[in-house]
Amino acid sequence: MKNNTENREIPYKIILAEKELPRNWYNMRADMPGKIAPLLDPVTMEPVTARALEKVFCRETAAQEMDETNRLIPIPEDVRNFYRMYRPAPLIHAEFLEKMLDTPAKIFYKFEGNNTSGSHKLNSAIAQAYYAKQQGLKGVTTETGAGQWGTALSMACAFYGLECRVFMVKCSYEQKPFRREVMRTYGASVIPSPSRTTEVGKKILKEYPETPGSLGCAVSEAVETALNTEGYRYVLGSVLNQVVLHQSVIGLETKTALEKYGIKPDVIIGCAGGGSNLGGLIAPFAGEMLRGERSYRLIAVEPEACPSLTRGKFVYDYCDTGKICPLAKMYSLGSGFMPSAIHSGGLRYHGMNSIISQLYHDKVIEATAVPQSDVFKAAVEFARVEGILPAPESSHAICTAINEALRCKRENRAETIVFGLTGTGYFDMPAYGKFNDGTLSESSLSGEEIEKSLRTLPDIAQ
Amino acid sequence: MKNNTENREIPYKIILAEKELPRNWYNMRADMPGKIAPLLDPVTMEPVTARALEKVFCRETAAQEMDETNRLIPIPEDVRNFYRMYRPAPLIHAEFLEKMLDTPAKIFYKFEGNNTSGSHKLNSAIAQAYYAKQQGLKGVTTETGAGQWGTALSMACAFYGLECRVFMVKCSYEQKPFRREVMRTYGASVIPSPSRTTEVGKKILKEYPETPGSLGCAVSEAVETALNTEGYRYVLGSVLNQVVLHQSVIGLETKTALEKYGIKPDVIIGCAGGGSNLGGLIAPFAGEMLRGERSYRLIAVEPEACPSLTRGKFVYDYCDTGKICPLAKMYSLGSGFMPSAIHSGGLRYHGMNSIISQLYHDKVIEATAVPQSDVFKAAVEFARVEGILPAPESSHAICTAINEALRCKRENRAETIVFGLTGTGYFDMPAYGKFNDGTLSESSLSGEEIEKSLRTLPDIAQ
Repeated sequence: MKNNTENREIPYKIILAEKELPRNWYNMRADMPGKIAPLLDPVTMEPVTARALEKVFCRETAAQEMDETNRLIPIPEDVRNFYRMYRPAPLIHAEFLEKMLDTPAKIFYKFEGNNTSGSHKLNSAIAQAYYAKQQGLKGVTTETGAGQWGTALSMACAFYGLECRVFMVKCSYEQKPFRREVMRTYGASVIPSPSRTTEVGKKILKEYPETPGSLGCAVSEAVETALNTEGYRYVLGSVLNQVVLHQSVIGLETKTALEKYGIKPDVIIGCAGGGSNLGGLIAPFAGEMLRGERSYRLIAVEPEACPSLTRGKFVYDYCDTGKICPLAKMYSLGSGFMPSAIHSGGLRYHGMNSIISQLYHDKVIEATAVPQSDVFKAAVEFARVEGILPAPESSHAICTAINEALRCKRENRAETIVFGLTGTGYFDMPAYGKFNDGTLSESSLSGEEIEKSLRTLPDIAQ
Repeated sequence: MKNNTENREIPYKIILAEKELPRNWYNMRADMPGKIAPLLDPVTMEPVTARALEKVFCRETAAQEMDETNRLIPIPEDVRNFYRMYRPAPLIHAEFLEKMLDTPAKIFYKFEGNNTSGSHKLNSAIAQAYYAKQQGLKGVTTETGAGQWGTALSMACAFYGLECRVFMVKCSYEQKPFRREVMRTYGASVIPSPSRTTEVGKKILKEYPETPGSLGCAVSEAVETALNTEGYRYVLGSVLNQVVLHQSVIGLETKTALEKYGIKPDVIIGCAGGGSNLGGLIAPFAGEMLRGERSYRLIAVEPEACPSLTRGKFVYDYCDTGKICPLAKMYSLGSGFMPSAIHSGGLRYHGMNSIISQLYHDKVIEATAVPQSDVFKAAVEFARVEGILPAPESSHAICTAINEALRCKRENRAETIVFGLTGTGYFDMPAYGKFNDGTLSESSLSGEEIEKSLRTLPDIAQ
């Protein structure tokens, strides 16, 4: 089989047929040697039970959150049906980028931006909305910063006729009116956070009437609203294991597409904020490594301004700034970490998904941090030859892919590099504008700033 | 063949293979019974020669503009190579829309929005940039209103290393800073029009210092700049016959995809501004009608606020407000027509491509005009079930497709409807915001307004 396909001419875009859409999500935890440390209740500091999680999350996704044994989880037929609207997503042979770099490396990227949410977030949004609908719920709440997750969830809820309340960080609500309008167009109610609709919001507004809001506060408002509203649950677009599970559809399609043409990747690169895209992209490849079948270089790319893997600690920490959500064992900069105003809103999270954290700790994956100026330079170079205008988040992966391709050029090695292009940058033009004007600020952190933030880590027996 | 394919299960998205990309554009004029009336020189009122056109346009596209005999024009290999980045574009079976409408009709749409320019404009931009490069030119000028054409041309010029100067109507330049930044990111220089870089711009600014600009003025500035700059030519994204020719790739792919699955369309619908998308979509179908092989209902949809086909006259008129460009025989509302501030910037042109005009005059195609409120209602209904957030321009076709599907429901007829979804609405969120808020203004025109505008038509023997 492999010999047959190796000689097939590789098209510019490898697009699988609909019947090749994965039938199951892949759960990396089933192949990991040890268990992931359990979530801890923020009050008792005891492991959280599925029953406790079900008060906040949908029943089925709470079960998925805890599932460490089932390797394959069937994708519901209804979710696969929705996936057909924008999946299988293309795996693109970056011919024009290779030519520009004059590298012997082969470069491929999995493009997840060809849907109205503009990113991979829709893969998990539709799954979570489906389970909410199945459970007979009336609606869901969530928070959004940059707005990609909020948009994806609004689309998914519109499809299932679920109500959707999105708490949008106030400064984003004001600075990104277009994102807000996309969500409203899909029927969501979008509330600037902090708001007067929750106790926690009122409390914060009383204390800091002029606050621009924060993701931590928006999480607290969304959770409080879900707990206090009949038939509602809270849903989240990253960080959780269930999200990494749903996103495994990215990696599964990528692997099928590569195998179809006999392409053997050496390096697989993804940007990493909460870990949803990276975890999904690398899942089946990490699985092969965990089972001792093959070896790859799997690289997580984070911003220098928010380097949780490369400069954080692997400890139990709160998942939210408000400390009302469970604690997870993860690489963290401390839940009090306030990232500088870099433009990759999707990568400004203080921690990292527990599975990714464990894989990094176990040296299954590598990590690197890149500065914002390099990221935008790579983004523009990429856009001009490959046509697609990438999101700043995705451009972290582009930046490292270019670095690796140039290394291959120096070493004269024909390696095969695959990276995840998570989304498009149409709503990030103010940042591009600053780059075009030469006024984009730098983003690195001093050791002192990191140390100060790490001191906010909780004092819990690890 | 047909019997074999008729039973093949139709996927949600019909995506042709790269090898099925058309090798030729199709020139409808070769199958039309009479010649299209020639362009007239605005000074002499004599037919324009190819040599005269070459002073403004690239040599090859000037020849294409006049070509009435060659049925098939080869698509240069280099252009086909670029097309592979985003083509073949999917033909989507609107299953979810059919279900929502509960109609016996089958609905398909050709989606041209999956590229960074967000529309079909890239199909002609890359062709025109290619010919400019082949001719050894240094750069091109153009104008842009809504910004889709300017974005497409910027991308095409970045790919070929051509300079690109875009005159952007001043109010759009100020109201659509994101569009402007996309163009700058692709290396274009974007100049608010009227500007002090041209004589015509200076003259207008002296007379009306506070003018928000107009497309007519931006055309004049772009043409003046092309004529006065060494190694430059002027390019245009619609109205011209060459553009309709390049856009025929839309219709050719659509026809191949339909035939592959034995689908026989009854009604084909496209929005119509200058006619580039509509002409491209219907080209091969109109060709069959012109050759007497088959019959379809081909429907042009225009806004009630700018109804050139349905309420204009078929006469010689100026193509630009400044009256410096040649005159064309076309349906026109008069070059002095000022459309009200509807949000479909791409459909606010006073005239219509000559080929489309002749086909409408000869009753090969039909036309209808729809009000803005119906258009946005259709757009939101569509977005919520089919996922894609459509451009307001494209939504004119959606609106009529829904009307036709509901007619089929009333008449209990299982007709097959195909429409063109030309692009996405990510840069049109202010208009969606107004619709969401219930503050979108209506757009119809009084008979008196139309009469007044028609009186600006030139007095030329037709």
